[in-house]
Amino acid sequence: MKRDLDRLMAERDLNGFLVLGEGHGAAMKYLTNGAFFEGALLLKPRGEEVTLVHGGMERDTATATGLRAINREEHFNRYQLLKEFGGDRLAASAAYIARAMEMIGLRGRVGVYGLQDAGAVLALMAKVEEQIEDIEIVGEYGETLFSQAFITKDDVELEILKRAGQLTCAVVGDVQAFIQGHKVGRDEVVLKANGSALTIGDVKAYMRGRLHASGLQEDHGTIFSQGRDAGVPHNLGEPSMPLQLGQSIIFDIYPTTEEGYFHDMTRTWSLGYATDEVQEAYDQTKEIFDRVMAEMQVGRPTRDYQLMTCAYYEACGHKTARNHPGTDEGYVHSLGHGIGLNVHEEPNFSHAEGNDTILQPGHVVTIEPGLYYPSRGFGVRVEDAIAFNEEGELIWLTDYPYDLVIPMRG
Amino acid sequence: MKRDLDRLMAERDLNGFLVLGEGHGAAMKYLTNGAFFEGALLLKPRGEEVTLVHGGMERDTATATGLRAINREEHFNRYQLLKEFGGDRLAASAAYIARAMEMIGLRGRVGVYGLQDAGAVLALMAKVEEQIEDIEIVGEYGETLFSQAFITKDDVELEILKRAGQLTCAVVGDVQAFIQGHKVGRDEVVLKANGSALTIGDVKAYMRGRLHASGLQEDHGTIFSQGRDAGVPHNLGEPSMPLQLGQSIIFDIYPTTEEGYFHDMTRTWSLGYATDEVQEAYDQTKEIFDRVMAEMQVGRPTRDYQLMTCAYYEACGHKTARNHPGTDEGYVHSLGHGIGLNVHEEPNFSHAEGNDTILQPGHVVTIEPGLYYPSRGFGVRVEDAIAFNEEGELIWLTDYPYDLVIPMRG
Repeated sequence: MKRDLDRLMAERDLNGFLVLGEGHGAAMKYLTNGAFFEGALLLKPRGEEVTLVHGGMERDTATATGLRAINREEHFNRYQLLKEFGGDRLAASAAYIARAMEMIGLRGRVGVYGLQDAGAVLALMAKVEEQIEDIEIVGEYGETLFSQAFITKDDVELEILKRAGQLTCAVVGDVQAFIQGHKVGRDEVVLKANGSALTIGDVKAYMRGRLHASGLQEDHGTIFSQGRDAGVPHNLGEPSMPLQLGQSIIFDIYPTTEEGYFHDMTRTWSLGYATDEVQEAYDQTKEIFDRVMAEMQVGRPTRDYQLMTCAYYEACGHKTARNHPGTDEGYVHSLGHGIGLNVHEEPNFSHAEGNDTILQPGHVVTIEPGLYYPSRGFGVRVEDAIAFNEEGELIWLTDYPYDLVIPMRG
Repeated sequence: MKRDLDRLMAERDLNGFLVLGEGHGAAMKYLTNGAFFEGALLLKPRGEEVTLVHGGMERDTATATGLRAINREEHFNRYQLLKEFGGDRLAASAAYIARAMEMIGLRGRVGVYGLQDAGAVLALMAKVEEQIEDIEIVGEYGETLFSQAFITKDDVELEILKRAGQLTCAVVGDVQAFIQGHKVGRDEVVLKANGSALTIGDVKAYMRGRLHASGLQEDHGTIFSQGRDAGVPHNLGEPSMPLQLGQSIIFDIYPTTEEGYFHDMTRTWSLGYATDEVQEAYDQTKEIFDRVMAEMQVGRPTRDYQLMTCAYYEACGHKTARNHPGTDEGYVHSLGHGIGLNVHEEPNFSHAEGNDTILQPGHVVTIEPGLYYPSRGFGVRVEDAIAFNEEGELIWLTDYPYDLVIPMRG
């Protein structure tokens, strides 16, 4: 949570942090409530407030964040800096950062975060260290200040995540009704009014319209994949493919709100009827989904749930990522992941050694068991997002029926 | 251009490059034709082909790029690496990168690029250098391998950029017709059929639907700002504000194609009529726009055009970023910028010392003079995108009328 940042800095022996901002980085969104700046800095000495340094043309966006804001052009004008450094852009840009740090009183061990071009980070940070004394730039990997703060959501964030779930489920319902509004023609192909086949591209176009109308954004795409493609977990689906009865369809939708928070849910559908092998794989998946959900509670290691899922699937005769690392068939991934400003963040449900994650109040995660058999032409997955509020109570963020077979007319 | 990458590496004494891929980085899009990978590496020793290392679940996306592809899970399985390094995620992730570099034969001076968390870059690259001998990681800033390759577009890219322009102009036309389809009520407010005011939010919602239907994406937002807000160059416009006659409206739209290429154009509109001061500022802006465009040709320094624009506006009595650095009023920015996979890239039109950019075949730029007077309640800007093809011929990418006054009925 945001209020943990000072504590997390103290634990890391950091005197402050610097967030570089090129594009839509999660740390930048977190502290600015989702504002978009083409280039900005966020600086915070431990125990003090966050300061935003923004471009002169973005001053209205800066004001809207509610943060203490400094106009870059007024204090660190780029033309004057370039002149001062004889046209050396690297030195001038580093001086802008270094002087902003000095102005805000950032010194000592400073953690650096934010999405930025990798080469620029290496060049700029080396130059900043040259330009100021008493600065040690710290780069964190893995369990960083922000990834740790992100893991637990406060009640303000939880309200946004609840809304994301409600809006997303409404879109899924609209998509289901849209498909069911079509007739089925010869060869079990779903048809449009003009007699041509309804394709995955048509369904996605309709879905995008509904997302847009709901104020949601499709940030990383949406999976709507049928048959063999459903057997490849991240296959987005082939737009030209006609919808067909009796094929497994994986519909995995992960849009974001205006503030940048994701929802993430998956349903497997089979139009009209399901084949026996799809029905069996689905029933097993829903069974382990229900068993896991029944045991979800704070205080339990996430690894337990993944091991439980692997054991169940293995007992059913499937390969898993545990007993066949790198397998393309069977249960090929881990059970779920945290969601928030990232579609995949901590906590993780890996069965790897060293994963000692314990479920806590404020955790928001997805649970998504699934089975994949591309060579047999199908895949199935069920995914809901759930949260533990600050009191540790389980809150279901996804509320949508689990029916595999979607009845069609004609 | 892509075919310049080997030459640009030689100029930098680089033996190869590594692109880290978290999210939508331009270098990743450039080499994968806009594919999205949640995490991937691109590696290229100088003189050899590009290799993509991708997650196991993204193998269909990888195949579609046409690049030589290596499945991360098959060769560098993350669970096995974590085990090998006793749960140390940084060491395991660095080993994945280091081993991929060794497998592909990347050694010596290796340039690193791609959008990635700043702290992760610092930590990972330090660790990679520890883990392999004979590697020097090079971080570039400013005129990098990719920013230099991006500056000139080949004919394949130019075709995408032309299509981006055509589609964007069609959307602008639809938006104009949409606004003109409304009536004007009392107090010169534009009205919807139900009698309530047509707002900026309504116009943007309509526009987003048109963008979507055209296959374009709104990547960084769209500016549709009226009155005082039009006087702040990057103010996106207040959604709740009703459209009103006689106010300057800046409509600056910069969507991307599926491949990730931007178009960028601006029109200033005044509904029904224009006030004298807006008309005068607009006429001056259109005048210098026309003068600049008449002189656009390869071989000329971009700085000349910015100086020409500053001189013209100053002669008209306006402040400019040249004679009043940091000014919020008058002509506050530079004349234009390159566009491609970034909405702002090289070449630049800065008047700063050290800008020795010369217009070349393959350059694709916007030209966007404007005047800003937030305290007087208006701003004006005109922006078109143009290209020089590989033969150096000027190609206009934006084709849309320049009328300031948009006639309204009733």
